[in-house]
Amino acid sequence: MESIAPSFVVSPGELADCVSALRASTPLIQCISNSVVTNFTANVLLAAGASPAMADLPGEAGDFAAIASGTLINLGTPYAEQRAGALEAVTAANAAGTPWVLDPVAVGSLRVRTELAFELRGLNPTAIRGNASEIMVLAESGNGGRGVESTDSVESAASHARSLALLTGAVVAVSGPRDLVTDGTRTVLVHGGSSLLTRVTGGGCALGAICAAFLAVHDDPLVATVAAHAFYSAAAERAELLSNGPGTFAVNFLDALALVGPQELKEKAVLS
Amino acid sequence: MESIAPSFVVSPGELADCVSALRASTPLIQCISNSVVTNFTANVLLAAGASPAMADLPGEAGDFAAIASGTLINLGTPYAEQRAGALEAVTAANAAGTPWVLDPVAVGSLRVRTELAFELRGLNPTAIRGNASEIMVLAESGNGGRGVESTDSVESAASHARSLALLTGAVVAVSGPRDLVTDGTRTVLVHGGSSLLTRVTGGGCALGAICAAFLAVHDDPLVATVAAHAFYSAAAERAELLSNGPGTFAVNFLDALALVGPQELKEKAVLS
Amino acid sequence: MESIAPSFVVSPGELADCVSALRASTPLIQCISNSVVTNFTANVLLAAGASPAMADLPGEAGDFAAIASGTLINLGTPYAEQRAGALEAVTAANAAGTPWVLDPVAVGSLRVRTELAFELRGLNPTAIRGNASEIMVLAESGNGGRGVESTDSVESAASHARSLALLTGAVVAVSGPRDLVTDGTRTVLVHGGSSLLTRVTGGGCALGAICAAFLAVHDDPLVATVAAHAFYSAAAERAELLSNGPGTFAVNFLDALALVGPQELKEKAVLS
Repeated sequence: MESIAPSFVVSPGELADCVSALRASTPLIQCISNSVVTNFTANVLLAAGASPAMADLPGEAGDFAAIASGTLINLGTPYAEQRAGALEAVTAANAAGTPWVLDPVAVGSLRVRTELAFELRGLNPTAIRGNASEIMVLAESGNGGRGVESTDSVESAASHARSLALLTGAVVAVSGPRDLVTDGTRTVLVHGGSSLLTRVTGGGCALGAICAAFLAVHDDPLVATVAAHAFYSAAAERAELLSNGPGTFAVNFLDALALVGPQELKEKAVLS
Repeated sequence: MESIAPSFVVSPGELADCVSALRASTPLIQCISNSVVTNFTANVLLAAGASPAMADLPGEAGDFAAIASGTLINLGTPYAEQRAGALEAVTAANAAGTPWVLDPVAVGSLRVRTELAFELRGLNPTAIRGNASEIMVLAESGNGGRGVESTDSVESAASHARSLALLTGAVVAVSGPRDLVTDGTRTVLVHGGSSLLTRVTGGGCALGAICAAFLAVHDDPLVATVAAHAFYSAAAERAELLSNGPGTFAVNFLDALALVGPQELKEKAVLS
Repeated sequence: MESIAPSFVVSPGELADCVSALRASTPLIQCISNSVVTNFTANVLLAAGASPAMADLPGEAGDFAAIASGTLINLGTPYAEQRAGALEAVTAANAAGTPWVLDPVAVGSLRVRTELAFELRGLNPTAIRGNASEIMVLAESGNGGRGVESTDSVESAASHARSLALLTGAVVAVSGPRDLVTDGTRTVLVHGGSSLLTRVTGGGCALGAICAAFLAVHDDPLVATVAAHAFYSAAAERAELLSNGPGTFAVNFLDALALVGPQELKEKAVLS
């Protein structure tokens, strides 16, 4: 296993500042996401303190990206209208300076989304979030996972994540038992979270939306993405303590996203 | 701020009768709604005692509107097939005498839905439900809100709601900290509810479906729409008492919709 | 009422073995399902121990069916792209030997889905699951239900279910207060469950997905389908004990699906 020694320090105070900024500004987050998880994603954003809007229609998606604080492009169910809407949104986001996140769900063997993911890869995403298998495919170094699951470890994806970051200019985040966030030169590991998140559909997809929300309120995309992951993990840990299984966990997780404040993140988040 | 003094009295007994009628008849409610909230909307209707069906497909939507007890047209994600299905449903609903509700989600700057909303405005909706910004846009007196959020107050929308009601023949309901319901000459305010409803996606959208359910069981659309809002607020108040945040609130709200009965509404609803 | 005397015995040990096999293999289940219930369906599969993926896009659905362990085709909202994806998936599933389940939601008066359901009926489904009215329509002996609800009893559908099984070669399951499962010659009744399942949207639809998951891990489709229904009922009974209404029931049901193990099914499932 190659080394994924962290090379950068995000201070507890910076994490706390990101949460304070989110709560103070209620950023408007455009979600162009898959039909399975839009409801959960919107509820995650609302609970965390952002304002979600699913505006993915051609003829509307671009106008919305221009006024949004952040945009998520998730490729889980890329129907024809949504593919057109996604490209329209990205063009407008780039023109307006709206940060946007690419989540290349299940890229690899599935042709339509994989082709779109590679096109979007070249359009200056602010951040790219996925599991290890997805990130490796997008870095052209893997064959893809099993459906929406990763068949590769975060550790094995580390160097590919750095390459992808350098290639695209995006911050790249790899989700797993511990999360890796890198901009190609600076790398941070985020510890904690809950394995129950993998038993709730959209657990990863909604994290992409939270990344967009934090990118909307902090100028350094690496710090913002690290803060998003640390915040998400802190809420998951809180929820796990109260839950008897995946059903109660999902509910308590939404409560926890509303309850985790700057101070808690400052004191409890574990980075390395 | 202009006066929004109420000008009509709905009696507690009428509210109770609406709930009794709903529970006795299990009305079949067609929901043509946005992809983010269809699940929550269907669960809200089931919990309240109605029977939901999402039949929005061209070639089916009209046939279904002809047999439904009520129809909801919500413009949150108006994909091309759904736009065609909505127009087909409205035509059939009008021919069959099926009451239908228009929810003009996020009209204003988003072109596709705004154009469709104005077309539907002219097709004799039984009721129109929205937040203050949406109602003002549809009355041609506002610029729209921020995404799906209102940037205007219920109070500022009152005279526009009355104008819109007189223009369209529809009952118009404006949701907010207190809800305003008017048919242009009679106006009622519904108090209560819970701010946690604004932290759950679809909190407003599902209210549109509940309006359709009450319109299906009572002849006076104003009374039916007031009863729908009072019922919804009573359930939200019950739920808030049991909840720790938006996650548990959404769950308890569904339980509460099943538990609020005629007697509770009769005793606790506060109108003015 | 005609006799629906059971004619076959599935042993408690076989039920337990099915659950053990599911948990041991985490089958990859492709869901081509309606937009109202995809989230709940995915969460049901995750909780039960399967790995869901909604891959319904033309150009992807066939490739995915070839690698999936099981496929669900649910006709609740059959948009044009999804209809094409469903046919592509079924062709590939049949070529690859992937078991697949047909859930003919609300067939009868709604033309688009009814035409597609009859086409799919002739393409060798492994199992067909529906309520009594849906099964009777597909056996060409009924007029359909009321929206997504059955207006016929399980008992009245029994002989039609057997005919449909003999006609198609599929196992046919009819959901109701007690569930009937038949392959045309062998018939089993599954008792138990909870009426609260009818107050949660997707309660039936997600059962179709669970059938696909059990078909993926057991060679006899009748035994697998019976085990799926018994497992689902056991979880529903557990959940009902903890719940105050449809909201808490849905949440506790997801927890219960994760908790019901082979031993519990062996001891508590009631068949006849």
